[in-house]
Amino acid sequence: MRQVVMHGPGNVQVEDREDPKIIAPTDAIIRLSATCICGSDLWPYRGAEPVDHQVMGHEYVGIVEEIGADVRTVKVGDFVVGSFWASDNTCEICQAGYQAYCVHRVLMGTLGTQSERARIPLADGTLVATPGIPDPELIPSLMAASDVLGTGWFAAVAAEAGPGKTIAVVGDGAVGLLGILAAQQLGAERIIAFSRHADRQALAKEFGATDIVEERGDEGVARIKELTGGLGAHSVIEAVGTQEAMAQAIRSTRPGGHVGFVGVSHDVAIPGDELFMAGIHLHGGPAPVRQYLPHLVQLIWDRKINPGKVFDLVLPLDRAAEGYRAMDERTATKVLLTV
Amino acid sequence: MRQVVMHGPGNVQVEDREDPKIIAPTDAIIRLSATCICGSDLWPYRGAEPVDHQVMGHEYVGIVEEIGADVRTVKVGDFVVGSFWASDNTCEICQAGYQAYCVHRVLMGTLGTQSERARIPLADGTLVATPGIPDPELIPSLMAASDVLGTGWFAAVAAEAGPGKTIAVVGDGAVGLLGILAAQQLGAERIIAFSRHADRQALAKEFGATDIVEERGDEGVARIKELTGGLGAHSVIEAVGTQEAMAQAIRSTRPGGHVGFVGVSHDVAIPGDELFMAGIHLHGGPAPVRQYLPHLVQLIWDRKINPGKVFDLVLPLDRAAEGYRAMDERTATKVLLTV
Repeated sequence: MRQVVMHGPGNVQVEDREDPKIIAPTDAIIRLSATCICGSDLWPYRGAEPVDHQVMGHEYVGIVEEIGADVRTVKVGDFVVGSFWASDNTCEICQAGYQAYCVHRVLMGTLGTQSERARIPLADGTLVATPGIPDPELIPSLMAASDVLGTGWFAAVAAEAGPGKTIAVVGDGAVGLLGILAAQQLGAERIIAFSRHADRQALAKEFGATDIVEERGDEGVARIKELTGGLGAHSVIEAVGTQEAMAQAIRSTRPGGHVGFVGVSHDVAIPGDELFMAGIHLHGGPAPVRQYLPHLVQLIWDRKINPGKVFDLVLPLDRAAEGYRAMDERTATKVLLTV
Repeated sequence: MRQVVMHGPGNVQVEDREDPKIIAPTDAIIRLSATCICGSDLWPYRGAEPVDHQVMGHEYVGIVEEIGADVRTVKVGDFVVGSFWASDNTCEICQAGYQAYCVHRVLMGTLGTQSERARIPLADGTLVATPGIPDPELIPSLMAASDVLGTGWFAAVAAEAGPGKTIAVVGDGAVGLLGILAAQQLGAERIIAFSRHADRQALAKEFGATDIVEERGDEGVARIKELTGGLGAHSVIEAVGTQEAMAQAIRSTRPGGHVGFVGVSHDVAIPGDELFMAGIHLHGGPAPVRQYLPHLVQLIWDRKINPGKVFDLVLPLDRAAEGYRAMDERTATKVLLTV
């Protein structure tokens, strides 16, 4: 099969590799319909994380081709969506809704899903089958559910977005934009997007943003205070992962409010005294996407949401290198690879 | 009246000062029955915070002597308990339960309550009257409600202590010990106290601790993991305020669990990547004691809890300097001053 391999920083190749095989009786093999490139794939691409002939990708949708002897809830021929952490969905941590921390979790990125086929460990706990084979127009949205939608949704839940609440969203990438969509679905009254890019502002509004703030840092915080009677937002999503973004998120939140942070943290140190005096709730980390997948798949199936709009470049798998380049050069927000 | 003044580090004197007067129509003047010395009073005492002829104290119980023209909910002769933040209890932040961040808040420490009388701003929002004049034996517990019990209670609430939960408590000072009492009252199934002092271990057990862990740091974390099937506690209270204590609290908590932190933060920086991967909830800061006061006063009045046991030294106000010395030298955990 064809599979993306990152030989080193900036060097992405699509190669012929052996098809995956069932190893454990709880495995499934899927034939992918689509996969995509994640913002986090750019860290090794840019040399900011070590990489040496590594298979890439952790987002996936596709058709089940083969199942292990113990798999019960998905069957050959099902169209499935899964998360970037394989999880048993039965341990105490999974049952509490934190499947990204399952005691048996497997990081899908170590297996690689930018490929024609993939082995999915713990298939029963990991995969969610759609009600039938989806129309092609639904594929991008189902693809988004695998990570960026699920992550944005978790951020909105962690920020306790809901009726009567004002939520601000730091970060206008795919996850931030889908955090807006999630907040709108969760009933937030007012949704303020931090963004200074016209195209992303437009998508933010389409997803439910009621206000756009172009200022950043302490000026951005001052604007949020102005818009909220001096108090700050009830809820804030942090979807960047830098010190500046985290500070902006914490300072934009009123005492007793909630910050949901999902930007993968890079060189962040939160000052204890500032956090102490802020009186906010802070919750985040890798999203337990599996918790939300059944609900998200249904919303997409019923055409109530269209998260696939975050993909602004679609390429065949064999042109993955172009996709990495486009995301690295910021000419694309999020790249979908068709298989 | 007599009042404690800290002339400089290590120099505490009790002086004759002018009686406080009603300034705003929402003020009340109380004659104190008791006050106490807080761990936080030791920072300036030790020269770790600047101090120059400063009035001291922010905890208080006593009898209302005079009220301003607009005061409605307390009357002359009432016995009252209040928090270290005066609050209007009507603004949007107060109504959300975060009275320590009231938009009109006044820090009682700036007025000083280690004194015979004190002016209480925003009396209606700040003070809670007891059902009658309390028996003398109840005074220490009502005194504790003013700060250390209210703070421990907030920590347990922030940590989401409750039925079926295992909670660990970092810090065996007055606040940590009363966090144990709060967790027990909130129905926690298992309460693990970190402590290596026999007398505090005994009080921890009396307040509801089911297990004692003497190890600290990563060894302490390893013990918590052993006691919780490898997962960590559901809930952890941090009642110290140091980098080590915060790290111990975060690492002792299972993914999806809750840390309630109330130790006043000193030189703490929380690593973003560790917090991201931990998947915990973090909430804390100055406790909104006023939120809990009516409930706490009733529990004390009905003799269902006895938080006054944290006071292990009682002195008259005029011997306050001895009390500071005892707490500084750790021969006392918490000093009550009778007035």
